[in-house]
Amino acid sequence: MKTDFEVTVLGNTSSIPVHGRNHTAQVLRHGQSHLLIDCGEGTQMQLRKYHIKTSKINHIFISHLHGDHYLGLVGLLSSYGLTKRKNPLFLYGPKGLDEIITTHFKWSNNRLSFRLHFIQTKDEGLNLVADLPHLKVYSFPLTHRVPTTGFLFREKPGFRNLIKEKLLKEKLPLEAIQTLRNGMDYIGPDGSFYPVKEYCHPKAPVRAYAYCSDTIFKPEISEYIQQVDLLYHESTFMQADLDRAKTTFHSTAMQAAEIAKISQVKNLLLGHFSSRYGVLDDLLAEAKTVFENVMLSEEGKTYPL
Amino acid sequence: MKTDFEVTVLGNTSSIPVHGRNHTAQVLRHGQSHLLIDCGEGTQMQLRKYHIKTSKINHIFISHLHGDHYLGLVGLLSSYGLTKRKNPLFLYGPKGLDEIITTHFKWSNNRLSFRLHFIQTKDEGLNLVADLPHLKVYSFPLTHRVPTTGFLFREKPGFRNLIKEKLLKEKLPLEAIQTLRNGMDYIGPDGSFYPVKEYCHPKAPVRAYAYCSDTIFKPEISEYIQQVDLLYHESTFMQADLDRAKTTFHSTAMQAAEIAKISQVKNLLLGHFSSRYGVLDDLLAEAKTVFENVMLSEEGKTYPL
Repeated sequence: MKTDFEVTVLGNTSSIPVHGRNHTAQVLRHGQSHLLIDCGEGTQMQLRKYHIKTSKINHIFISHLHGDHYLGLVGLLSSYGLTKRKNPLFLYGPKGLDEIITTHFKWSNNRLSFRLHFIQTKDEGLNLVADLPHLKVYSFPLTHRVPTTGFLFREKPGFRNLIKEKLLKEKLPLEAIQTLRNGMDYIGPDGSFYPVKEYCHPKAPVRAYAYCSDTIFKPEISEYIQQVDLLYHESTFMQADLDRAKTTFHSTAMQAAEIAKISQVKNLLLGHFSSRYGVLDDLLAEAKTVFENVMLSEEGKTYPL
Repeated sequence: MKTDFEVTVLGNTSSIPVHGRNHTAQVLRHGQSHLLIDCGEGTQMQLRKYHIKTSKINHIFISHLHGDHYLGLVGLLSSYGLTKRKNPLFLYGPKGLDEIITTHFKWSNNRLSFRLHFIQTKDEGLNLVADLPHLKVYSFPLTHRVPTTGFLFREKPGFRNLIKEKLLKEKLPLEAIQTLRNGMDYIGPDGSFYPVKEYCHPKAPVRAYAYCSDTIFKPEISEYIQQVDLLYHESTFMQADLDRAKTTFHSTAMQAAEIAKISQVKNLLLGHFSSRYGVLDDLLAEAKTVFENVMLSEEGKTYPL
């Protein structure tokens, strides 16, 4: 059975939080591992609203230093302090984020009860920022009004699953089981041969999630996100507002679909909608003209990979 | 008719925002004038939820630099920038608030579209911080883990209202009307005498609102808030948790009631409830044993003075 790998959207609005929409934040879950991606104002309230235990989050990824992507962070850290969190927390984000946090805590006279490790992202090339037990996380550059990165979350190849029926029939030595699960044939001391293909299910293909917010239309990112299972790409505007998208360094729904198409991704998730659009169906329809497997990100909804 | 003078509670929780409660923020309305008092995380969403136009707010008062009292401020200022606010904004708060705001805007590469005037509050004595057309606002020191002030909002004596029936019967010169409204008798050039008592309703007594959050039990503040119409006083804990109140520099519901009693206020409004209390009735009952006219602050509810 494949490990659960899914993303829950906590907010989908850009700029002004109207229409009852909240600022950007997502929880990516891979098995027991919970990662928070961006942390707009109110994220700690949204986490509680959707019954996601904040204590489960050990890694937070911040794309850039515009308020709608990180203003919930200091509140979340403060709450961790109040609940006497002990587990270390790993925070990934651009230069300046550490200064912002330090300034807040300097004046609040509060101390964190846990170790906060800050890993500064670079705004050039693909960089491995976190090597977690079951996932590798990379940052890559987007182009926005301030230094901004996207994030790529790629599953590590796991162990192969043994075929139960074979195991029940034959008594395999422990060493054979370990070798087979690692994907290799096993030859016993007596010369007995256990081919992995016969004893194991085929390895599940590794899955990947790519997160791109905020950015002007940038086809160059396609090299980093080729064939991912799910691509989240901002679509702040519609094509009719392309000029506005360009001047604010944002993308349109059609451009997001174009990125999905040239990157040959499986599914596209749109988000970061401008407050000018009360209803979002037209953004979806526009994207569909270019790329079929597209969804609107909805607050509180979970998208499996 | 008296000018509307009322306070709307946008959040009533301390520390961890559980039970669907939000962090501290209040809107004090006096006629057309809207003042924001504290600005916890999510305040801009709460303002929209309760249909209070953010553009109407020209003055923001921050009591202290703990996150649950100001972390919504940068988001609100950012939204003002996005909506191209032009009116100047006056911000009152302790030393450090300006540095926090400056640090955020330095990294966001955004500029405000309006003038932001910062008035630093002092943590000693009663100080006039804002002299508005119909209100005077004073700060006074509370005792908490960081420099903290309460705020006193006192109505200015207004014009007296003329008695309509008299005006319909007699034709008064404009000069007489102005003099009478200012509360003085008028003597015409021909020696005619218009006593203010005969032509005007008695002057409405000036009203006052006092805001005290957060503070350890501090009877000394009573001198600043004597006989106010409405006192908001934090009541983070119940008397059973008095030790916890002392070590965290907070007050109990009973202590808040004690302050109301010795200050001879008309009404007491409790708030800033600890997340440990799921139901708040016991805090109200405890306060009532000391002071009868007491209410629990409820999110979205408006309390007239």
